[in-house]
Amino acid sequence: MSASKMDKRQKIPEPTVSRLPVYFRRLSELKQTGVTIVSSEEIAAQAGIKASQFRKDLSYFGEFGIQGLGYPVSHLLDRISAIMQLNKVHKMVLVGAGNLGAALANYPGFARWGFTLTEVYDADPRKVGRRLGHLTIKDAGELPKELDASIGMIAVPAQAARDVAQLLVDSGVNALLNFSGSQIFAPEHVVVRNVDLTHELAILNFFLLSGKA
Amino acid sequence: MSASKMDKRQKIPEPTVSRLPVYFRRLSELKQTGVTIVSSEEIAAQAGIKASQFRKDLSYFGEFGIQGLGYPVSHLLDRISAIMQLNKVHKMVLVGAGNLGAALANYPGFARWGFTLTEVYDADPRKVGRRLGHLTIKDAGELPKELDASIGMIAVPAQAARDVAQLLVDSGVNALLNFSGSQIFAPEHVVVRNVDLTHELAILNFFLLSGKA
Repeated sequence: MSASKMDKRQKIPEPTVSRLPVYFRRLSELKQTGVTIVSSEEIAAQAGIKASQFRKDLSYFGEFGIQGLGYPVSHLLDRISAIMQLNKVHKMVLVGAGNLGAALANYPGFARWGFTLTEVYDADPRKVGRRLGHLTIKDAGELPKELDASIGMIAVPAQAARDVAQLLVDSGVNALLNFSGSQIFAPEHVVVRNVDLTHELAILNFFLLSGKA
Repeated sequence: MSASKMDKRQKIPEPTVSRLPVYFRRLSELKQTGVTIVSSEEIAAQAGIKASQFRKDLSYFGEFGIQGLGYPVSHLLDRISAIMQLNKVHKMVLVGAGNLGAALANYPGFARWGFTLTEVYDADPRKVGRRLGHLTIKDAGELPKELDASIGMIAVPAQAARDVAQLLVDSGVNALLNFSGSQIFAPEHVVVRNVDLTHELAILNFFLLSGKA
């Protein structure tokens, strides 16, 4: 969905990394329904790829399957969870408490995967002091010098995104999830991922039109 | 970011399709700033891929570059726009007028790329009749038999997603962008794209942790 600035040190292809959450989610569902062994074909179908690609994706992280049997659901789930460190708590802050910010603050999936929102900021004085979920909205002009969070979510209007990114980086945030729809700049050591929901629509529409053709 | 159900008829790899909006956006920005020729390296860097991958992506759609010169920005932009049919209007409906629905209804990028929201539905009687952007929220229990839209956006709680997907398909919608975080089922002819923002966080976090290691 997004343009993403990949760290040069990464050897694992981004498409592979992008599929890990899909595998994780599918394996979680299978485990919940009591399935113990799964084929590469089944998980691959879920991710819209071939079974061979699924096996290649996993090969970056070691050996998992049992020849002729398939993959042990629980073991593979634990391994992917460990690879993505979803078995740990990751703190994040949100800047922007508009509709999208409110949706993000209340997004049920985040906490379930270990992502904990610790602070919410907004530049609008009418919003500062109000509650958003379990948090009180703070003044974006007063970001502390050292935030106790590694991830910053940017849900501000496009024209404010660059300044907000700079503020977050200055506060020690090393990863930015940018929902502003605007390009932001960050130092080399900061990981940036741009989420543009328009891209999702465009991709969906492409498949719709191609299928009809 | 998402598991997506690809139409079997598609020959173009999904990662390639997923990058087209990134190219489109970058080319739009370049055109706006008066750049007329761009190298594959520059656009590739934007998408976090190698230049060779960019050239391969384009090769699915024909020849574009001028040997030793680069790509003519305006021409390539027009071609990608035509390939993705972003030069046309695509009507869509939204079901779910909560925080996320409100964010989607007001998302500035959609209209700019030709995606026009024509109707908004919600099941909550307290929301029905209220305004959301330029539209009035309608009762989700009263979806017409034939909606004048090809795309349906689902922004309802997870437990309601399946029913809503069914209602939309029954109303003639052929493409679903599912933000519910819950798996939905649709007939073969319906294109589904699941957007789970948790996946974006997990991917960002993976790159953050890998870079630090």
